[in-house]
Amino acid sequence: GVKEILIPNQIVTQEKIKRLVEVNKKSKVMIAVENYDNVSKLSQEFEKNSMKLGVIIEVNVGMDRCGVELDEIVDFAKNINDKQGLDFEGIMGYEGHTVNIGNFEDRVNETTKAMNKLIKAKDILEENNISVNIVSASGTGTYNITSKIPGITELQCGSYIFMDGNYLKVFDDFQPALSLLCTVVSRRDNRIVIDCGLKSVSMDQGLPEVVYPRGIKLVSLSEEHCKCELEDDVDIQVGDKVFVRPMHSDTTINLHDNYFVHRDGIFDEKVEIVGRGKFK
Amino acid sequence: GVKEILIPNQIVTQEKIKRLVEVNKKSKVMIAVENYDNVSKLSQEFEKNSMKLGVIIEVNVGMDRCGVELDEIVDFAKNINDKQGLDFEGIMGYEGHTVNIGNFEDRVNETTKAMNKLIKAKDILEENNISVNIVSASGTGTYNITSKIPGITELQCGSYIFMDGNYLKVFDDFQPALSLLCTVVSRRDNRIVIDCGLKSVSMDQGLPEVVYPRGIKLVSLSEEHCKCELEDDVDIQVGDKVFVRPMHSDTTINLHDNYFVHRDGIFDEKVEIVGRGKFK
Repeated sequence: GVKEILIPNQIVTQEKIKRLVEVNKKSKVMIAVENYDNVSKLSQEFEKNSMKLGVIIEVNVGMDRCGVELDEIVDFAKNINDKQGLDFEGIMGYEGHTVNIGNFEDRVNETTKAMNKLIKAKDILEENNISVNIVSASGTGTYNITSKIPGITELQCGSYIFMDGNYLKVFDDFQPALSLLCTVVSRRDNRIVIDCGLKSVSMDQGLPEVVYPRGIKLVSLSEEHCKCELEDDVDIQVGDKVFVRPMHSDTTINLHDNYFVHRDGIFDEKVEIVGRGKFK
Repeated sequence: GVKEILIPNQIVTQEKIKRLVEVNKKSKVMIAVENYDNVSKLSQEFEKNSMKLGVIIEVNVGMDRCGVELDEIVDFAKNINDKQGLDFEGIMGYEGHTVNIGNFEDRVNETTKAMNKLIKAKDILEENNISVNIVSASGTGTYNITSKIPGITELQCGSYIFMDGNYLKVFDDFQPALSLLCTVVSRRDNRIVIDCGLKSVSMDQGLPEVVYPRGIKLVSLSEEHCKCELEDDVDIQVGDKVFVRPMHSDTTINLHDNYFVHRDGIFDEKVEIVGRGKFK
C-alpha cells in the first residue's frame, strides 16, 4: 500500500472524517485545514480513536479559494497545537492561478509572488516558535519555478505524468502520453464525425485536438459525436482510427474507468481509474 | 427487459457489431445507418447469425453532423433493401441545432425547416415505393413543435426527465428534478467554497447555479472546488449543504455512478447509472 497520503483538500463532514480514521489505519494520512470548527471535529474523532491525524494549514497564496490569510495563521496554528488527536505538520499553498500563464516571465513573477506569501507564512510561524516541517505547493505548470524557491519542501504536481493540450501550450518539458483512440463513424466530403464527445473528452479548457492522422481539424463536440473538417488530401474512411488529445487531462481521465497503457507501441496493461466517481 | 431499443447512432466497428448481435438476442434492436460500407458489414454479421437488424436511415436535417442528404437517400434505401440480415424500418433526423434556440418563434421556424427536410425524405422514399414505418426526431427543446408535424411517428426526447439550467432558460414545461447535494468546505467573508467541481458537475453549457439556499452566486469551478459569492445576509457555514443545478444534465449525470432519488422530500432509492463509461 501507500505509506503516506496527503489530501490537499478540506474534509469537513462527519461521515468523511470517520472514513479518514479508517484510511489512517492503513496509511499515514495528512489533510489540509483552514477552519476552526473543522479542526475541532477532526481532533475529537481522532482522539476518540486514539489516533493522530497529520494536518497542514492551507494558506491562501492568491487564488482566493480556500486558505487562511497571514494575519490569522499564528492563532490558527496555536489552536491546532492545543488540540488532541492532531499533529501539526506544516503548511501548503496552491498557486493554481499561475500554472497556466503562457508567458514564462509572467509565470515566474506571479508564482514567485504567491510563493513569497507561503514562505512568509512559514517565517511568521517559526518566529512564533511553531515548527513547520512541510511546505507543500506547486502544480505542473510551475514545477520548475516553485522547486527553486528556498523553503519549499514538496511539489504537488500531477498532470506532468500525461501532460495535456493546455500544458503543452505552456511548455514541452514532459512528453505527452494521453490520447483517446476513436473511430470515424461518418464521412461526407471534407467532414468526418468521430465517436468521442463530451461524455468521453472534456472541453472545460478548450476543444481537444486530433493528433493523428494529420490534417484533421476538430470543429465541435456534442455528447457522443465529434465533428471534424479534413484538409483536401486526407485519406480517411468510416471505421478508421483517430487519436484525440484533450486540452485538460484531469477532467478527461475522470470520464473513464480504465487506462489502456501502451509501451513502445504495444499494448501493455489495462489500469483501473479508481478515484473517479467518489463524491459521497 | 426492454422489448425494443433504438440506438440513434452509428455502430461501425466489427467488435461493436458483434455486440449488437448479442443485444438483439434479448431485445429487438434498431440502429441508425448512413454509410454503404457500414450497411454491408452489419448485413454480413446479422446474416451470418441468421438474424435481422432493424435499421433506420439517418437524414441530415441541418445539423451537418451525420446523415445522408436527400439526393442520396433513394439509392441508399434500395441498397439496404437489397441486403440480407437487415430490416429497413424508416428514417430519423435530429434537429440538435434548434433545441436550444431561446426565442420560441425562431425555434418553431428552424425546427419546422429541419423537419420539412425529414418529411421530404419520407415522401421521396414513398414515391419510390419504399415504405417508411418510423420517422423519428426531436429533442426535449422541440418536443412541442416536432410532435405537431404530420408524419413524425416518435420523439427522441430525454432531458425532460430531469431538465437542466439550460433547458429552463428555454421553457418550464417540465419540473426540474436534478441537483447535486454539496457541502460548504470553506468560508471567508462573503466567499464560500463548496465541494463540487468539474469532476462532479459539467460546464460545457455554462456555469451551474446554486438553487438552495438563496443568495449564493456561483463564480467559478475548478476540478474539486466551486467558488461562490454570498449576498450580505446569507447565513451559511462550513459543513452546511448547498444544492447545485447543472446547466447540462446529460454531461453531469455522466460523471456519476448513482442517482439518489427522493420522493416528497424523503430518500426513496439509489439507482445505478449504468450507461456511463461504456466507450469501447
